[in-house]
Amino acid sequence: MQNFDYYNPTHIVFGQDRLAELNNLVPQNAKVLVLFGGGSVKRFGTLDKVLSNLGDRSVLEFGGIEPNPQFDTLMKAVEIVRAEKIDFLLAVGGGSVMDGTKFIAAAAPYEGNEADLLTHGFGALPISTSIPLGTVATLPATGSEMNKGAVVSYNGGKYPVMSELNYPKFSILDPSVTFTLPKTQVANGVVDAFVHILEQYVTYPANTPVQDRTAEGLLKTLIEVGPVTLAEPENYEARSSLVWCATWALNGFIGSGVPQDWTTHMIGHELTALFGIDHAQSLAIIQPSVWKLRKDKKHAKLLQYAEQVWDIREGNDDERIDSAIAKTQEFFESLGVKTRLSEYDVTRDQIDDIVNALEKHGMTGLSETGDLTLNISRKIIEDAYA
Amino acid sequence: MQNFDYYNPTHIVFGQDRLAELNNLVPQNAKVLVLFGGGSVKRFGTLDKVLSNLGDRSVLEFGGIEPNPQFDTLMKAVEIVRAEKIDFLLAVGGGSVMDGTKFIAAAAPYEGNEADLLTHGFGALPISTSIPLGTVATLPATGSEMNKGAVVSYNGGKYPVMSELNYPKFSILDPSVTFTLPKTQVANGVVDAFVHILEQYVTYPANTPVQDRTAEGLLKTLIEVGPVTLAEPENYEARSSLVWCATWALNGFIGSGVPQDWTTHMIGHELTALFGIDHAQSLAIIQPSVWKLRKDKKHAKLLQYAEQVWDIREGNDDERIDSAIAKTQEFFESLGVKTRLSEYDVTRDQIDDIVNALEKHGMTGLSETGDLTLNISRKIIEDAYA
Repeated sequence: MQNFDYYNPTHIVFGQDRLAELNNLVPQNAKVLVLFGGGSVKRFGTLDKVLSNLGDRSVLEFGGIEPNPQFDTLMKAVEIVRAEKIDFLLAVGGGSVMDGTKFIAAAAPYEGNEADLLTHGFGALPISTSIPLGTVATLPATGSEMNKGAVVSYNGGKYPVMSELNYPKFSILDPSVTFTLPKTQVANGVVDAFVHILEQYVTYPANTPVQDRTAEGLLKTLIEVGPVTLAEPENYEARSSLVWCATWALNGFIGSGVPQDWTTHMIGHELTALFGIDHAQSLAIIQPSVWKLRKDKKHAKLLQYAEQVWDIREGNDDERIDSAIAKTQEFFESLGVKTRLSEYDVTRDQIDDIVNALEKHGMTGLSETGDLTLNISRKIIEDAYA
Repeated sequence: MQNFDYYNPTHIVFGQDRLAELNNLVPQNAKVLVLFGGGSVKRFGTLDKVLSNLGDRSVLEFGGIEPNPQFDTLMKAVEIVRAEKIDFLLAVGGGSVMDGTKFIAAAAPYEGNEADLLTHGFGALPISTSIPLGTVATLPATGSEMNKGAVVSYNGGKYPVMSELNYPKFSILDPSVTFTLPKTQVANGVVDAFVHILEQYVTYPANTPVQDRTAEGLLKTLIEVGPVTLAEPENYEARSSLVWCATWALNGFIGSGVPQDWTTHMIGHELTALFGIDHAQSLAIIQPSVWKLRKDKKHAKLLQYAEQVWDIREGNDDERIDSAIAKTQEFFESLGVKTRLSEYDVTRDQIDDIVNALEKHGMTGLSETGDLTLNISRKIIEDAYA
């Protein structure tokens, strides 16, 4: 096991009918900015419930945070936070709203050029304060409700923004609030959580049976409940397990003390930025091809994944690995998430644009062994296109 | 899944050679009381390393916290904290030292009768402040390094003490610090962690596949690494997994949203209080008999445990369950922990004393279904004696 730090102070409030607790969770004298995305939290009444449970507090609203939240949009909220002296941010929405809110929390008190906050990669932001925030999470997918990370879109790129000051103080996870989500978003959520786990699990062995078995348990649960929660959106138990899987997929536990490989995410980000492909779709496209091209690096863990997650026990090593890759791809497809880049609105000659974007954004040297070249990335994308 | 809250803000600092980080983890201007138990942390040099890493801070020491820490001992430390205006407590030791330090943290600022803090059971202490504390954990077992609970001995009883204010700010877990532990303590640690998991897992099904699979992963890991870490105390990887299992066995995650049954602990506590039987030994004695007498309540989960943890797939339900109970008992025995009360220094007529103590301490109505009577408890103890 590698040395590691694990720290996650977010208070999770899980279950039905918990919104009334907002009145205790949000500081009594706070001036609150409630942030949300499109109209669905209004349409389905979640926003009204949130507002009514904030009682007599002074509350402002900021709607319109788009998927893959844009720096320019978020800066409008930053201006409001500054002008109105907001001292608590409440994100009501999915990963984009939560991520956007984290950026706003860090940027509002920041005295430098806010775009500089996008330049620190997976390193901690150089900040000493941020506005406290809470979330009412309405989409199980990104894990943003219980981690310190965010991704912000700017100038054709997607940038990680990490700070321990950005852990939500609390996150209310009511699975029944997610019943009204469109099927595509639920399917995307399953894939997003699944790939988050894979990026921390399918690398190389590091004597971490607790982390590995937890990762395998999360993957098996997603394989089980994914189809159920798509077919029966109001099945509370299936949706609860999806929500809880998505949270633990990316809250630090399974990634503690293990090597990680975020290649799929980094290439996927360029697909989203260039072509507007949904984040989870971009992962479903790239993930299987990363494994095909990096089998040698991941041999032992791919075999473990084949056996422990898919119960593949027949055939030689290569056959088992190929079967596990195929099963993964079929799982994504079975949820309605297409896994070939050619099935999206992208032409083969645009592969150059993707590779150029990776180069521009410094996306080389990735992977658990730090040796991903642009040439290998190109081969991965070419394989994913076919 | 039941509604639940999950909150655990302890910063875990895991791995070798992390003690130097104490200088950053303990507040710079803190006046520190370092608490420990017997002489082993002195003898093996851990205490010296801790003290040297506290730099120029004003530091006092309080040694002699015994196993099953006594209220009277802890009150001596409380007096020191008050007189010396200590503002940070650093526990260096195992569960007893950490538990004792948590009580001291709560009691020192408390203005009422400190013994009243022992009367709140699993409910939160009625306190609004406690002295911040950190730990250097030297024994993987109780999970106290990453939870809000403690158990304090007083007047012939063992009393839970719970407060969210008592989460350690940080815990340094260096598996190599535990290499010098006596074998009995390591074996006890494996059993303690194992039974912590069982009390949250073998109850009745509640649609919690994530929690169940994590519990099963922890149990399988303990079965795997327990014998290895006993035979090879300096095997860093095996010891690391034991340490990490013990922490996650009782930090709230696997207990979130599930029914729990702390019967084994509550009866076991009386064995320790009356006869000085080690905590883990008391659990190894009582656990199998709780299952034998409560099979009907735990039928489905015992079957799941048999299949998922021990891979028992032959025989009818009763045979599988009996086999799982036998395997559990054999596992404890294989670690050198005896599981029959008659093997300890207790006579059969003293069973009355145990039942009377349970009555005196209000230990009725326990279990996941709240219907444990003194009569059933007597049968459990009689079964455990034979």
